[in-house]
Amino acid sequence: MKRVSLLGATGSIGIQTLDVIRLHKDKFSLYAMAFGKNVSKALPLIHEFNPVIIVVQDEEAKRELQKEIDHKQILCGGEGLIEASVADPVDVVVNAVMGSVGLPATLKAIEAKKQIAIANKETLVTAGHLVMEEAKKHQVDLLPVDSEHSAIFQSLNGENKKDIHKLIITASGGSFRDQSREELVGVTVEDALNHPNWSMGAKITIDSASMMNKGLEVIEAHWLFDVPYEQIHVILHRESVIHSMVEYVDRNVIAQLGTPDMKVPIQYALTYPERKDLPITQHLELEKIATLNFEKMDMNRFPCLRMAFEAGRAGGSMPTVLNAANEEAVQLFLEGKISFLDIEKHIEQALEMHNRIHKPDLSTIISIDEETRRNVRFHSS
Amino acid sequence: MKRVSLLGATGSIGIQTLDVIRLHKDKFSLYAMAFGKNVSKALPLIHEFNPVIIVVQDEEAKRELQKEIDHKQILCGGEGLIEASVADPVDVVVNAVMGSVGLPATLKAIEAKKQIAIANKETLVTAGHLVMEEAKKHQVDLLPVDSEHSAIFQSLNGENKKDIHKLIITASGGSFRDQSREELVGVTVEDALNHPNWSMGAKITIDSASMMNKGLEVIEAHWLFDVPYEQIHVILHRESVIHSMVEYVDRNVIAQLGTPDMKVPIQYALTYPERKDLPITQHLELEKIATLNFEKMDMNRFPCLRMAFEAGRAGGSMPTVLNAANEEAVQLFLEGKISFLDIEKHIEQALEMHNRIHKPDLSTIISIDEETRRNVRFHSS
Repeated sequence: MKRVSLLGATGSIGIQTLDVIRLHKDKFSLYAMAFGKNVSKALPLIHEFNPVIIVVQDEEAKRELQKEIDHKQILCGGEGLIEASVADPVDVVVNAVMGSVGLPATLKAIEAKKQIAIANKETLVTAGHLVMEEAKKHQVDLLPVDSEHSAIFQSLNGENKKDIHKLIITASGGSFRDQSREELVGVTVEDALNHPNWSMGAKITIDSASMMNKGLEVIEAHWLFDVPYEQIHVILHRESVIHSMVEYVDRNVIAQLGTPDMKVPIQYALTYPERKDLPITQHLELEKIATLNFEKMDMNRFPCLRMAFEAGRAGGSMPTVLNAANEEAVQLFLEGKISFLDIEKHIEQALEMHNRIHKPDLSTIISIDEETRRNVRFHSS
Repeated sequence: MKRVSLLGATGSIGIQTLDVIRLHKDKFSLYAMAFGKNVSKALPLIHEFNPVIIVVQDEEAKRELQKEIDHKQILCGGEGLIEASVADPVDVVVNAVMGSVGLPATLKAIEAKKQIAIANKETLVTAGHLVMEEAKKHQVDLLPVDSEHSAIFQSLNGENKKDIHKLIITASGGSFRDQSREELVGVTVEDALNHPNWSMGAKITIDSASMMNKGLEVIEAHWLFDVPYEQIHVILHRESVIHSMVEYVDRNVIAQLGTPDMKVPIQYALTYPERKDLPITQHLELEKIATLNFEKMDMNRFPCLRMAFEAGRAGGSMPTVLNAANEEAVQLFLEGKISFLDIEKHIEQALEMHNRIHKPDLSTIISIDEETRRNVRFHSS
């Protein structure tokens, strides 16, 4: 029995993680569960899975929850996330919180030698060097939950990393893949949230529309698989059937394919290195899909992807700035305060303003993160 | 340094095997080389690679060769193939001869604990149970050279066979994929040899046009990977970019992709479990290929594939009959003695006439093979 600590339980990945746990009650139990403020969504899950530790975002959410249930361990905020991650009985931490708030808990979980299923790409983007250094030091597996990284991870099974020629990350193109840059002027939040293939949370859906999601994935892949940016390629693939590929030095390309269902990579991260039946997910039927398309990725059409590559190559604190500016700008767009095309402008401005720091430690990263967010807010008002 | 014994050196696979050996002279040397009667094609290769053992098809070819070179060990026929396979210094036997004539040498090579790179699918089709039993007994690796089986083999790297849900073998469709059955009446040998994707020998190109090649591959896959026929699917994929796939129980599908170049699987079989650079082969460029298509395989359109599945499921001596009847009928077609559609009629008739034997031993297989060929010749005259 693997005891799971699930950070971000009421989000899209969280709910699907619980689907997987429910399916394999003989293999997994929910030991700890963290969510933000959505008490009404969390309550039936608490009743069903009966976690030992519950973490909520703040005291207000805690009071609201305590009105509904009598539970011994309801914790709050970042400290709560850490306690839920390092608790002795926990075997695996599924980090599916949104944004860089997931970072300190990840670092502490690694220190406590927990297996980490990482759905929180911002953690690796903002502090990849720290996370990987700790993972190496404590010999902890970082198991990717993103479909692209799960695809690469699986395509590397039984292989030697020195034989990698390049990683090929596929991108569906997001909600606006068929619009020109001119047509993006004045698009609404609703337009941006209408992703053609995947059903996901708001932040990642906007990131998909701007192609920043692919940019963050490139940086995540760089850290997870220790591959230089020159060997990471992005290709437009509308159908999202090939989730990503690895080309080896001998021209063999290994790929993972599947239906666009996050339960597949979630379960793989939980069962790894084993595989288990997943009857709640459709089989891939290529005869029915009939056609897979591939196009070159246009860096001028998608400047967020270009900026992510540039920030990644520059390294140091630049990816922290990229990520923080993006998180804040997306939030402002979702709040209706800036336009869609303003997102990339804010990121570009933040990167230009920032003086790169070589190997930022955790407190430096946190202060750069906060400063960047403040600046974006300031410039947008 | 791996010393290679290459059976079938002047054929398409043989020549490409020598391309790979030439590329990695520091890793491979040609210890033994067998070919049929094409002395003029073999001579420059003998001069270049200087093999210790040379095997030719018969005494006539031997005399012809001896006029040209002075060489200590020129052997003949089936006995020669066996000597070239079991010679002490040989590390790996590349069996790329055409047809079931490759069988005894393969069995002896396994007994001598040589690594086998198997491009001769007829060996496994006609006597899969014997070959796999011996391979298991002597703990010998059977490394597939067929692109489809290399794809499956690579898609199984680091995986557990018990997790296989199904094998998905792709088929380009061959020279006549766009013709109806009615349009096949009166097609010529030249039409059939015009394969859209792969440049291969005559026998395999005709087998591709009739879809028997895919049928033989299904039987080969059954034996190589120990997967029941119910879990082997064939799908039409015109572009031959995905060479085959494995679907696992958790819905993850792992695939190998590449350009249609046999040097890729040949080199992998030689370097396994390592990978080496292969600069003489193009990189796969999906952006340029742009579209991959997949269609359901129509068993009525391709009765040879249906018969192969049936013979495989029936087991025993049925695949031997299927293979021998096919080899003989293809030969008759190439000689202009029967029509293209007669090939499948001869196979069907041979299967109908035959009384299945449960677990035929080698001598039984050889006599069934000979009898089947005689019958096909007789019925065609």
